[in-house]
Amino acid sequence: MTKPLFVGLDVGGTSMKAGVVNDAGKVLSSANVLTEAQLGQEVGLEHMCEAIRQAVAAADLKMRDIAAIGVATPGTMDIPAGIILDPPNLKPWRNVPVRAHVHKVFKLPTAFQNDANAAAFGEFWAGAGRDVHSMVLFTLGTGVGGGIIIGDIVLEGEHSHGAELGHMKIEMTNPRQCGCGRWGCLEAYGSATSVVKRAVEALAKKGTRSSLRDQVGELTARAIFEAAAEGDSLAEKIVDETAYYLAVGATNMMHTIDPAMVVYTGGMIAAGESFLKRIRKYVKELAFPVPAKKTVICYAKLGSDAGFIGAAACARKLFLQKRR
Amino acid sequence: MTKPLFVGLDVGGTSMKAGVVNDAGKVLSSANVLTEAQLGQEVGLEHMCEAIRQAVAAADLKMRDIAAIGVATPGTMDIPAGIILDPPNLKPWRNVPVRAHVHKVFKLPTAFQNDANAAAFGEFWAGAGRDVHSMVLFTLGTGVGGGIIIGDIVLEGEHSHGAELGHMKIEMTNPRQCGCGRWGCLEAYGSATSVVKRAVEALAKKGTRSSLRDQVGELTARAIFEAAAEGDSLAEKIVDETAYYLAVGATNMMHTIDPAMVVYTGGMIAAGESFLKRIRKYVKELAFPVPAKKTVICYAKLGSDAGFIGAAACARKLFLQKRR
Repeated sequence: MTKPLFVGLDVGGTSMKAGVVNDAGKVLSSANVLTEAQLGQEVGLEHMCEAIRQAVAAADLKMRDIAAIGVATPGTMDIPAGIILDPPNLKPWRNVPVRAHVHKVFKLPTAFQNDANAAAFGEFWAGAGRDVHSMVLFTLGTGVGGGIIIGDIVLEGEHSHGAELGHMKIEMTNPRQCGCGRWGCLEAYGSATSVVKRAVEALAKKGTRSSLRDQVGELTARAIFEAAAEGDSLAEKIVDETAYYLAVGATNMMHTIDPAMVVYTGGMIAAGESFLKRIRKYVKELAFPVPAKKTVICYAKLGSDAGFIGAAACARKLFLQKRR
Repeated sequence: MTKPLFVGLDVGGTSMKAGVVNDAGKVLSSANVLTEAQLGQEVGLEHMCEAIRQAVAAADLKMRDIAAIGVATPGTMDIPAGIILDPPNLKPWRNVPVRAHVHKVFKLPTAFQNDANAAAFGEFWAGAGRDVHSMVLFTLGTGVGGGIIIGDIVLEGEHSHGAELGHMKIEMTNPRQCGCGRWGCLEAYGSATSVVKRAVEALAKKGTRSSLRDQVGELTARAIFEAAAEGDSLAEKIVDETAYYLAVGATNMMHTIDPAMVVYTGGMIAAGESFLKRIRKYVKELAFPVPAKKTVICYAKLGSDAGFIGAAACARKLFLQKRR
């Protein structure tokens, strides 16, 4: 019997990416399609099916060569029901029965997962976490997301709110407001958005010297990390604080989940090895000695492919369960 | 075939409690033995075996009627190895091979678990969590401990540091020092010790009026909760803040583990239903709408028996695995 092949699809706010992945986690093809959420959810569902077809065609395969499909989307969602509920990044979609639709079109076992959970499962299966038993992934971008994998279990949570790692509260006295409206969330400290916001605040103070002063209004996290690398002391301070905040988040996971590995992904890991070293240094200060010594803290390996690879991993898990 | 019976043993700093538990989680007998850790670990191991024997005798049974044994102890520990490492509450014990010893003496399958994890598994099997699929337990006493159960998995963690819920960091700007030496841990805010400490600090301020003023030096968390119930405004404020801190801890678990149920146990739950209502009120303010609405927040049901019942549940799990 030939080994089974899977299609994973990762739906994002701007575009979606599908890929054919083999049983060993190797990517055979991929295809990008614009999401165009504003055109409505019916169009969105068509685009999803189109991305899946394109990925299969790009691998010189037919749909009958595929064993199962996995679809990952942003929340809010009901994972067991296979439905996107009211996603802030996919407006104006509401209550979209993604899994049922994809299943109906292709007549194949179809898995459904949160996008950050899928990225974590992808890294666990075929990336940074392939040799460990458990892993926590932090996605560092506009926001802070995450995924928790224990054994072959994706911690979805009882109400599809598992691993909302950006929304653990790490500050009570003087909390920053988070994009979610709450106060003191990790995301309000450790996201790229927060890096820029804190820099802008610091620059607004009279007498602050910084090479970033010219860029106010168009500042990016990347520019701040670059300025820090070039020795700008304000940027340096912002970057160092960011590493500390992320270390607090990592430590909180090490004292609750206690994974073998903490992995970072997303745009901010362009900051490179020196940023990772800072996070590790603060984790050593913050965590209990044993996890501080033994937990591997590293960057992800699959880049933006982790989502569809993880969606394919969900498809594979479903396929293996059904075959039992 | 008759249904299997199990012995659970919960070793504490002062005393240990063993009990025979049937396959449905019903307690058939129990026995208390002093731990006397100061007499050394060899004596400690003898006491453990003695407690097990007493529990079996108290149920009018012989050791041959028992299918498996579970032992729960405080940490630090290496759970997979079955060893207590360097326990602050069992000085001067070091590197005690608990599981191997008990197994050697009784020649029965023997499980080993952290005491708070065992308490969580006990409540999950036979107490507050018996009808749910996942549960987070907070133990509120001198410190804050915890256990996380997902399905039939006790989240031990990769380095036996899973569910150290008292040591998630919830404050950065103005952190209190924790008993563990670190800063800003939940335990430094939500433990009985912290309740007393905060009251003493408030009473030290000039001009503070409170019925607690006479009791400084011998204040207890219980007295503070009682004074709050009688309308003392200082005590009221301390109790309200404590509920808030515990709600932060619960919310952080709801946004990471997303369990069906958050359960509190330990001395502080003597504070009663009004305290629980305050925690629930703050959780509604702090958590995302869906988990805030759906997560059950309640007190434990098994009291101090949860530990040995949970240890018996670990024995049962081991027995069922071996029988497969």
